Amino acid sequence: MSYKFLDEIDSPTDLKSLDVVDLPLVCEELRRFIIESEAVNPAHFGANLGVIELTVALHYVFDVPNDNLIWDVGHQAYGHKILTGRRNVFNTNRKYKGISGFPTPAESKFDSFGVGHSSTSISAALGMAVAAKMRGSDERTIAVIGDGALSGGEAFEALNNAAVSNPNLLIVLNDNKIAIDETPGSLREYLTDIATSKTYNKVKNDVWRLLGKVGPDIRHFTQRIDNAVKSVMMKQGNLFESMGIRYFGPVDGHDVISLVRLFEDLKNLGGVKLLHLITQKGRGFKPAEDDPQRWHAAPGKFDVATGEVIADTEDPMCPQKFQDVFGDAVLELARNNPNIIAISPAMVSGSGLVKMFEEFPDRSFDVGISEQHAVTFAAGMAIKGMVPYCCIYSTFSQRAFDQIVHDVALQKLHVVLCLDRAGLVGKDGATHHGSFDLSFLRCIPNLVISAPSDEYQFRNLLYTAQLEKNKFPFVIRYPRGKSYHPKSEIEFSEMEIGKGKCLRRGKDVALVTIGTAGQTAVKVADKLQNEGFDVSVYDMIYVKPLDTKLLHDICSAHGQIVTIEDNALQGGFGSEVLEFVSDNGYNIKVKRFGIPDYFVMHGTQEELIKECGYDADSVYEWIKKCCYNS
Amino acid sequence: MSYKFLDEIDSPTDLKSLDVVDLPLVCEELRRFIIESEAVNPAHFGANLGVIELTVALHYVFDVPNDNLIWDVGHQAYGHKILTGRRNVFNTNRKYKGISGFPTPAESKFDSFGVGHSSTSISAALGMAVAAKMRGSDERTIAVIGDGALSGGEAFEALNNAAVSNPNLLIVLNDNKIAIDETPGSLREYLTDIATSKTYNKVKNDVWRLLGKVGPDIRHFTQRIDNAVKSVMMKQGNLFESMGIRYFGPVDGHDVISLVRLFEDLKNLGGVKLLHLITQKGRGFKPAEDDPQRWHAAPGKFDVATGEVIADTEDPMCPQKFQDVFGDAVLELARNNPNIIAISPAMVSGSGLVKMFEEFPDRSFDVGISEQHAVTFAAGMAIKGMVPYCCIYSTFSQRAFDQIVHDVALQKLHVVLCLDRAGLVGKDGATHHGSFDLSFLRCIPNLVISAPSDEYQFRNLLYTAQLEKNKFPFVIRYPRGKSYHPKSEIEFSEMEIGKGKCLRRGKDVALVTIGTAGQTAVKVADKLQNEGFDVSVYDMIYVKPLDTKLLHDICSAHGQIVTIEDNALQGGFGSEVLEFVSDNGYNIKVKRFGIPDYFVMHGTQEELIKECGYDADSVYEWIKKCCYNS
Repeated sequence: MSYKFLDEIDSPTDLKSLDVVDLPLVCEELRRFIIESEAVNPAHFGANLGVIELTVALHYVFDVPNDNLIWDVGHQAYGHKILTGRRNVFNTNRKYKGISGFPTPAESKFDSFGVGHSSTSISAALGMAVAAKMRGSDERTIAVIGDGALSGGEAFEALNNAAVSNPNLLIVLNDNKIAIDETPGSLREYLTDIATSKTYNKVKNDVWRLLGKVGPDIRHFTQRIDNAVKSVMMKQGNLFESMGIRYFGPVDGHDVISLVRLFEDLKNLGGVKLLHLITQKGRGFKPAEDDPQRWHAAPGKFDVATGEVIADTEDPMCPQKFQDVFGDAVLELARNNPNIIAISPAMVSGSGLVKMFEEFPDRSFDVGISEQHAVTFAAGMAIKGMVPYCCIYSTFSQRAFDQIVHDVALQKLHVVLCLDRAGLVGKDGATHHGSFDLSFLRCIPNLVISAPSDEYQFRNLLYTAQLEKNKFPFVIRYPRGKSYHPKSEIEFSEMEIGKGKCLRRGKDVALVTIGTAGQTAVKVADKLQNEGFDVSVYDMIYVKPLDTKLLHDICSAHGQIVTIEDNALQGGFGSEVLEFVSDNGYNIKVKRFGIPDYFVMHGTQEELIKECGYDADSVYEWIKKCCYNS
Repeated sequence: MSYKFLDEIDSPTDLKSLDVVDLPLVCEELRRFIIESEAVNPAHFGANLGVIELTVALHYVFDVPNDNLIWDVGHQAYGHKILTGRRNVFNTNRKYKGISGFPTPAESKFDSFGVGHSSTSISAALGMAVAAKMRGSDERTIAVIGDGALSGGEAFEALNNAAVSNPNLLIVLNDNKIAIDETPGSLREYLTDIATSKTYNKVKNDVWRLLGKVGPDIRHFTQRIDNAVKSVMMKQGNLFESMGIRYFGPVDGHDVISLVRLFEDLKNLGGVKLLHLITQKGRGFKPAEDDPQRWHAAPGKFDVATGEVIADTEDPMCPQKFQDVFGDAVLELARNNPNIIAISPAMVSGSGLVKMFEEFPDRSFDVGISEQHAVTFAAGMAIKGMVPYCCIYSTFSQRAFDQIVHDVALQKLHVVLCLDRAGLVGKDGATHHGSFDLSFLRCIPNLVISAPSDEYQFRNLLYTAQLEKNKFPFVIRYPRGKSYHPKSEIEFSEMEIGKGKCLRRGKDVALVTIGTAGQTAVKVADKLQNEGFDVSVYDMIYVKPLDTKLLHDICSAHGQIVTIEDNALQGGFGSEVLEFVSDNGYNIKVKRFGIPDYFVMHGTQEELIKECGYDADSVYEWIKKCCYNS
């Protein structure tokens, strides 16, 4: 594939050398490049196609990295990466040692701020813009934030503070009506209101007219804009204006030439302003335009012409994803227990909850990107006798840490906190690994914390958590991706709280594990057994309460404990075992395997686990060498 | 002191039996009761006097606990506590084993939801109201939230979700213009705008007029209200209306009879509505009306007539509070380093930052109750070369956990995160102890985490943190309250990163401590020395990076390590020492002292520390018994 313009663009400087009339062709090529890349290396898709024109216009007009450009979340920054010197390495996107799927300052000076989690861009941009103002620099700062990300509380906190210092800050609201699933909430309705209102469209036209006529007298121009905006819009009331932020828009986000003209004008306008762009997710690729949810990320390798997904030949006996096991189980439980509620902060499909939301719309709540609210809302439900299954990705649960402590644990409320994508998550990389949860949850009193070693146990934990007799805060953390057994409709059975399990009774060495690390331990034990070494394997299932009876047995019968977990080694499950051993005065060696003390980057799960050294081979080698001297 | 009405009110039922015209007298008595109580048992003050009429009117009209009443933060709920059966135990407020300073369901069925941290009330109330709707219950749910608390992102997340399910929910916005310090931010300006606008006052009058005329035909009434509000206010634009929430107000929050009438009407109105009350902090007590910041909490025991504070005879050599040491040091450092910035989420005076804010207003940012924003804003500043001292109470830093991981640590940004009130905080109790920070921070890569054992070290850590060569994320955690030495103007000196200190070289037993637990250790060692036992004392200063060289020395020279910390025993400093001992194969016993695995309640610091068993006496006893068999 060759690209007339794109092949020559190695930095924004090259882009700027083009004539503005060529930009639509640049956009076309950039769009084609992304589609063709993703057809063989699937990744975040729809949002990237939605911001092609925005990306080209921003880099054509502004001067990044002297100006600061912050992409909220950053999964939509592929065009930005391609235009800023990473076109030739874009085929390594999200691969091990390749470029990251998110803007990362360590990767490129064009990535002004590191992102990955939602709703941080305005806060960060405000910090940068205020710093620029203090240093007397005339650099500009631009934050690009989607309507979904705007529902996160931090974005509001930042908006509330933006006008106070009034630095030079442009907020581009990329309004595509969709986060991953459709954006819920009043803010969404409000944005639709203003995007469709006649008054606003009139103002939009007024603003455009003024912008079209602008002369060299910027001061005068600014005043006229101000007047137009203030006199017409302020009077009509506007969420952003009411927060002291000048509002422009809504405008079509796919007209690159108009965008360039608009940015040229806004560029010279001081203070905090917000430009409301209407864009379309998946723009320019029919299948993604028609089904933006499915194409949030490319659903697999696909045919560029038809969008048909080139499916891997799927084994019909293939194990389900943990996410689907979760969704099926919650639905089944909800049918039998009318108090069960499902809550998701904008991750309904990712969490496997689509069927639950369809069958029980009144008992299912997509609260938008609002992890804090999700947890306290669940607590409010629980104190009134409901049994909320609040499903949050482990990495995003970091946003709700205080609510877990203060609203759920302290009040001992019956919230079932389902932490999806715990442990390493593969290609999303450093910002998204769920590698801290055992450490930050273990210190919280009153919690039950569990992690299943396979999907059967997972189902039974989900069942156990809702039982009337188990009315306390109940955490279940489980990994991203495929489980282990062929799908089967096994009846739920209750699991005793705080009771672990001996999987294999050997001698000398006890492998003591939590969660799916149990699978690793069994592999290790198998390999060792083949060489005549019989080690024990214990699946503790619960991090809290710890099965102290079982641990006493383990400590009495073995000279060495090896722990395996997919959590940070600092304060995690292995540390808990150490605490037990020490507190009970056992003189027994403990070797801990888990995630070491640095931010693990992206790659396949297998590559990353190997790098961290808690894969079966590494554990096996260590035991052979250090326990059996062979 | 006797109270004609109050003496007979043991529950809201007693209050309801009174005639409405007597309510102003009830308010007067309630106000007097609180003032007289606090004169001898100082506690949160101004906010309580500001909501007297609101409290009486709510309990007169609504039917708590059948109806749900959630006080945001809850430090303003003293009147509520006194009217709901706790008048006779109110003298135990915040005392050890006494009643809590915050609503606590475990204490009373009239406390519908546990609070303490800000901005949770709407989320919790929404959960309760939606649960009521599902169960077909006609109970009402009321959330009372201040304008300060409304700036917290979670409150916005909840507002954004409130209208979606549209349950029966009344949000009372208690607008007193002041959180603890004056509320910053655009929202504040917006509220002032609507409170002073002629249009709004006209609407207010319209609404009042309608409410006054309301007949038994509720449906008709609702429609009229709807029309009045929609036709006049929607057109004018209103932040809350734009979020689908019916807005009423602003109205005078000190006219109890009008409030009763208003609540009687609102009570019968379904859906989500917000009533904007204008109240005055400290209302009815002149000194507090004049200086609401000083009287946020009563500044000490005081004379009821004059408000004169009955000062303890203060030793001029008395050590400063850690908070004042912090404020003085930051100011001093800021004078010499123009890049230093101070950031506080609404705790400027509590953090000791008043002088910094006065001398460097352009370099000082009170971002309101917005811990998430505070940290990412600091990160944005840092990436542009500023050195932000972001000062957050340890317990509130739980709100910014994700931002510390994702925005600061992952990007290795030079943010100095100053965690005030770490460890147990005394009378504020369970919601406010800073007892988890070492556990939840220790798992985060790239952080430097330090804790000074006294104020001299504290100053030097604050100095060290801003040095150009130490450009990485730098956490300093320090306790609430008095430090140890007479105030002195010692020059700053640099402290080597990750280097601990041997305070005393003994034998057999090594006391290894972090932070002000070092003071405890010295006391223990002194007592032991008096009896002929020479133990060693090590002040590690840094939790991360750990001084491994020093720890190797310690492990080589002692048979027993005793750790002391004011953090949870799960995954804290002691666990870190255990990890080191285990990872390095030392066969040495470790006994850990710290905060056990339950939520510690309120009392004096000394009482709580004794309860937790890490006071000097307890540690001394243990060592004598277990290490020296005597």
